[in-house]
Amino acid sequence: MILNDTIVALATPSGAGAIAVIRISGEKAIDLTAPLFKSVRGKNLRKQKSHTIHLGHVVDDGKTMDEVLLSLFKGPNSYTGENVVEISCHGSPYIQQEIIQLLIRKGCRMANPGEFTLRAFLNGKLDLSQAEAVADLIASDNEASHQIAMQQMRGGFSNEIKKLREELLNFASLIELELDFAEEDVEFADRTQFKNLLKRIQEVLKKLIDSFAVGNVIKNGIPVAIIGEPNVGKSTLLNALLNEERAIVSEIAGTTRDTIEDEISIGGIGFRFIDTAGIRETKDVVESIGIKKTFEKIEQAQVVIYLFEADVISNDNEKSQAIQIEIGKLKNKYPRKPLLIIANKVDLLSEKELNFIKTSIENIHLLSAKSGLGVDELKNKLLSFVNTGALRNNETIVTNSRHYNSLLKALKEVEKVLFGLDEDVPGDLLAIDIRQALYHFGEITGEISNDDLLGNIFANFCIGK
Amino acid sequence: MILNDTIVALATPSGAGAIAVIRISGEKAIDLTAPLFKSVRGKNLRKQKSHTIHLGHVVDDGKTMDEVLLSLFKGPNSYTGENVVEISCHGSPYIQQEIIQLLIRKGCRMANPGEFTLRAFLNGKLDLSQAEAVADLIASDNEASHQIAMQQMRGGFSNEIKKLREELLNFASLIELELDFAEEDVEFADRTQFKNLLKRIQEVLKKLIDSFAVGNVIKNGIPVAIIGEPNVGKSTLLNALLNEERAIVSEIAGTTRDTIEDEISIGGIGFRFIDTAGIRETKDVVESIGIKKTFEKIEQAQVVIYLFEADVISNDNEKSQAIQIEIGKLKNKYPRKPLLIIANKVDLLSEKELNFIKTSIENIHLLSAKSGLGVDELKNKLLSFVNTGALRNNETIVTNSRHYNSLLKALKEVEKVLFGLDEDVPGDLLAIDIRQALYHFGEITGEISNDDLLGNIFANFCIGK
Repeated sequence: MILNDTIVALATPSGAGAIAVIRISGEKAIDLTAPLFKSVRGKNLRKQKSHTIHLGHVVDDGKTMDEVLLSLFKGPNSYTGENVVEISCHGSPYIQQEIIQLLIRKGCRMANPGEFTLRAFLNGKLDLSQAEAVADLIASDNEASHQIAMQQMRGGFSNEIKKLREELLNFASLIELELDFAEEDVEFADRTQFKNLLKRIQEVLKKLIDSFAVGNVIKNGIPVAIIGEPNVGKSTLLNALLNEERAIVSEIAGTTRDTIEDEISIGGIGFRFIDTAGIRETKDVVESIGIKKTFEKIEQAQVVIYLFEADVISNDNEKSQAIQIEIGKLKNKYPRKPLLIIANKVDLLSEKELNFIKTSIENIHLLSAKSGLGVDELKNKLLSFVNTGALRNNETIVTNSRHYNSLLKALKEVEKVLFGLDEDVPGDLLAIDIRQALYHFGEITGEISNDDLLGNIFANFCIGK
Repeated sequence: MILNDTIVALATPSGAGAIAVIRISGEKAIDLTAPLFKSVRGKNLRKQKSHTIHLGHVVDDGKTMDEVLLSLFKGPNSYTGENVVEISCHGSPYIQQEIIQLLIRKGCRMANPGEFTLRAFLNGKLDLSQAEAVADLIASDNEASHQIAMQQMRGGFSNEIKKLREELLNFASLIELELDFAEEDVEFADRTQFKNLLKRIQEVLKKLIDSFAVGNVIKNGIPVAIIGEPNVGKSTLLNALLNEERAIVSEIAGTTRDTIEDEISIGGIGFRFIDTAGIRETKDVVESIGIKKTFEKIEQAQVVIYLFEADVISNDNEKSQAIQIEIGKLKNKYPRKPLLIIANKVDLLSEKELNFIKTSIENIHLLSAKSGLGVDELKNKLLSFVNTGALRNNETIVTNSRHYNSLLKALKEVEKVLFGLDEDVPGDLLAIDIRQALYHFGEITGEISNDDLLGNIFANFCIGK
């Protein structure tokens, strides 16, 4: 990997805004930028201190391109650990392009996705799991996933791994030392202490591995399948659930609405709603394909919502029966999956109809998505289905499947070593398994890495980070 | 207008990116932010110098929300002239929202569109026409409009107006002084000098007013109507024209393509292509409505392109005749409008067919949008239709219709004064017209303004600027 070139990229989202930030990193970042920047106070950029801001113009061959604020960071005290210049220019895509093109003409190179963070990792500013947390942090869209990413970025998870790795490394050295003195039959490594350490590691690994299930759900949102005929009020329900949050969202202009319709944050937890067709009996081939898909989606979901219009229970015998049959089927097919049966539009019912519906269907949740009746109760019910105990207790949660795989492998090796200790396996064989475990620990924090692995990880970043 | 509150807004485009910048302005900007910011080096934010950057965490009740860089600007040395804090946080929309919400809970107010620039104006950091140029600069999407906005933001246009206004103001004072000594019949203001000044002002105003036509075209793009049947290659032509620029655009991820299809920058000038239906004779009512619209669009266009498939001239007698008739109609109806007749897909023609088409249609432009043949010549032809002389000579160009109107009114008053001088109109009447002219000058730079006017101007800004 060539590190001595200077990379440039737009660090803020593309499109028009009040300002945009162009980021430049590399040994020559300041030297390359200085000739293009004319300070209003006639300052020499090269002589300015780190962490200072300078007002001036970006000029190209005497032509003024923009009035900008230039922020200066001198390595190693920067994000990447290299010299970094950030140009805060006016937010027109045209200006952004022109300035980036100018910098490229003057010797910068367009940065690859995640290349700034990759450099931070290679320069020892972050370990690999922290670098990965940066991407998670940017992608986080609810409190829970944000909190986990934040914790990971600050080293919570990898510090634990690093500490265990170090302790294990000590024992490994001692055992390898024993091998050198094999003929004298000495024991430098206290087997009881070693066994205790391995058991402690085993316990931590198991806890971390177990946390992946909830971590994964939190990172990607808890999948909720909504079953119901068209027009029973699914969109209105999503809007009602979203109501509180949207008030916040709408204060920032241009926040995309599309994704919100599917993903909703309730009590800081992301829920991912999956719309499906109904599941009634049919002979129509096309429809039965749709129903097969519905079942697949229900399988994937953690919670199933069955939504229908309340008034049909009293007024449409045929539909009412169909609904009862569907509910029965769902319960039979998925006895352990939380099922929420919701009668929507209850504001249109008479007192009598309300009572009838309550006696007709067990555990019915009455709701009026339009008026907001029953929405808060629904939120609480949804939250109650989520195992967020670990989250609430501020425990370390693994969300990254790469880490999960390394943890699984490390656990397997640790258990091999434990087994070996019990069976009095020779030290040289123990040593191999310990080295393997250390290797998998190192994979997580990046002490063990290769270009392919790094390429894979950073390719998922956005450009400019 | 209340200025002593603290405003906050996202300054970068909304959406996810590597980083986002949240801007806070007001006397209390630093005091409100300091308790929420925990410097990694334990710095006290209130004691830091202006134009410095600090690494730390945004914390809310002990909970770390993000690792951020905080930039400090102390009034009056800031964009708004007030204390300004810019928080550069991770670019997740969730984090952006959370930090903005936190700041609002702690006493900031969500900024209105353009409110930062409004404050810059009210605090005397920019005059009104410069403030307006900021919005133009952000909206600029080609070299010409960018250059004009840049020039205006740096004061080119308003400095000229201010100087003239000052000179006029001097004479106004002298003439008003004469009124105080009316009985003594003195003449403080040299009438010949005054007349010369007025003539100079008249000339400048006329030049500025004339520049509006080209300025408006540059700001909004030169409208080009493309006439032609579907599938004659309009999109391919636009893509071919765009070819060079798109290579640049695509290096920045996520740049919107939709608008590019309609707006293209050629040689730094924006061209706005208007797709239209053909204009052949028809009895179909719906189609004739379409044709009426086509004529309207041609009226609005500065250049008309008539595009057809080259091969029909040799191979389809009926169509060939229809094309000849349409060209004739266009020439008759719009004798003074530049018309470009383009035969597309000439790469499919034989030598013989090529010669035939050249002799059949006068001034035909041969093109293959697909292979790129004739595209450069077309660009040059399009540019030749544009009156960019003024632009090339770096003259001041008026692009803002508010300025245009004020200039027109000022010119009218100046001419009244000139007429009055010739007719020996009494000084008190002259004074009124001079005051009127001064008023209209003041409208441009903002020396004369009112809340309605300011509201109107800044409502068109994006939030965060």
